[in-house]
Amino acid sequence: MKLIKKVNILIVGLGLLGGSYAKGLKKLGFPISAITKEQSSVDYALENGIIDYGTTKIEPEIIGEADLVVFALYPHIFKKWIIENQQYFKSGAVLTDVTGVKGCIVDEIQQILRNDVEYIAAHPMAGKEVSGVENSDENIFKGANYLVVPTKKNTKEAIELCSNLGELLGFAKVAVLSVEKHDRMIAFLSQLTHCIAISLMCANDDPDLVEYTGDSFRDLTRIANINDEMWSELFLSNKDVLLEQMDIYRNTFDKLYDLINNNDRDGMREMMKLSTKRRREFNKKV
Amino acid sequence: MKLIKKVNILIVGLGLLGGSYAKGLKKLGFPISAITKEQSSVDYALENGIIDYGTTKIEPEIIGEADLVVFALYPHIFKKWIIENQQYFKSGAVLTDVTGVKGCIVDEIQQILRNDVEYIAAHPMAGKEVSGVENSDENIFKGANYLVVPTKKNTKEAIELCSNLGELLGFAKVAVLSVEKHDRMIAFLSQLTHCIAISLMCANDDPDLVEYTGDSFRDLTRIANINDEMWSELFLSNKDVLLEQMDIYRNTFDKLYDLINNNDRDGMREMMKLSTKRRREFNKKV
Repeated sequence: MKLIKKVNILIVGLGLLGGSYAKGLKKLGFPISAITKEQSSVDYALENGIIDYGTTKIEPEIIGEADLVVFALYPHIFKKWIIENQQYFKSGAVLTDVTGVKGCIVDEIQQILRNDVEYIAAHPMAGKEVSGVENSDENIFKGANYLVVPTKKNTKEAIELCSNLGELLGFAKVAVLSVEKHDRMIAFLSQLTHCIAISLMCANDDPDLVEYTGDSFRDLTRIANINDEMWSELFLSNKDVLLEQMDIYRNTFDKLYDLINNNDRDGMREMMKLSTKRRREFNKKV
Repeated sequence: MKLIKKVNILIVGLGLLGGSYAKGLKKLGFPISAITKEQSSVDYALENGIIDYGTTKIEPEIIGEADLVVFALYPHIFKKWIIENQQYFKSGAVLTDVTGVKGCIVDEIQQILRNDVEYIAAHPMAGKEVSGVENSDENIFKGANYLVVPTKKNTKEAIELCSNLGELLGFAKVAVLSVEKHDRMIAFLSQLTHCIAISLMCANDDPDLVEYTGDSFRDLTRIANINDEMWSELFLSNKDVLLEQMDIYRNTFDKLYDLINNNDRDGMREMMKLSTKRRREFNKKV
């Protein structure tokens, strides 16, 4: 199956990401249906031409028409949804998702899933500090990375289809990596950075801080404005890997602390030179 | 003295900040001279109409003509410059600076300074990850904070003049605070955030990180691209206060670590709710 315009796409969960997928794919000409929790999300999406059809109910016919189903749900809801509704999938349908952790769901879902349906995991590394379909925007994918996370059970065709989806959505880069590598990378790059932002914001309750702040503090704490329900689930879903990455970072922070404490200017400058050299590689390529 | 257009302004140190001051003030119609280390900086500034006169030498006549002198130098060079050249200042001249720490210089400079000249400390909280007059840009002040840091020795007139300078340069907010409060705020808001960015960048040498990164990591490490000569001096100039703020942050990070380790979802969500509530206050008001 190639991702051509007659492919019917079903989005399950019309929030910020689900809505952004719908917007981007609708503009490309795909027929888009959606199943989501709130009628207000369906109404908004229909009024704004983001979807062709939407419902808050499990409608077997709608599920059965979909060639590609994108799950934009919390991990535990995703699992429950599959268990309860997988009988309605079209034979040969491909499922994918947007979940930020993989180890806790990919194997399990592939085990419980019907044999004639394939689930290929993906992680679009894009977001905003606001949620809901009302804030969805397909431009958040520009310049961002899209990760395809296959297991041994996945076919070459599904990996290609899923990669193709990322390209069509406008991601700057599509990469394919294993579940283990994905979760380790995400623990460091995304979960740890959220832990740091939360800690910074909670560490100091001086109300005057806001008067004296600069861009550095704003940049480091942008993601401290966080969906606590989702992120507490993501942290615990990847707990061991996250704690390991937190330890690695903390050791480095402690090293810098000791260098300052020991007036070791050369040691500090070495770390700064290394951080400068490495950081330059990370400038966004749009 | 009010900051009117016949006031002669001398910039000492024509780097990123000195150059940005010169650009902004020149556009407002002030006569601008500059003394700086490199002839190439003088040439660039003259060719681009940023200054009216520039030199790499100590020219007593130029120093003696200035009503307002802005020092955009490293702290230790600033002190040395004052000791060696203060005899050339015009009587009644006002000096100010852009230095990021205050405790280590303000009292000392006010003590050694001639009685007929006044030094009023300021900290423009703006910058870029690049240096040099070639990268100067007066737009970096828009939306940023400008801190005036007087001591008991300062006159009301100089505090007003210095505040007026910040307003003219286009800062969104001008605040007046004590040396102690300034250095504590800066340790938390600016120095600690740089320590975190450096540590994040040095903690993990996996070359694949750049392939899988997202905006969160980019935001948290933007300032890891750092001038090691300047920042090692700034850290050591504010060492005790910085170490104290690093401890406060580290304790909060450790608390979050423990909550994750103990599967304490409610505790994590409490911290996230607090960080979200506080962070919303910090959105930039331009």
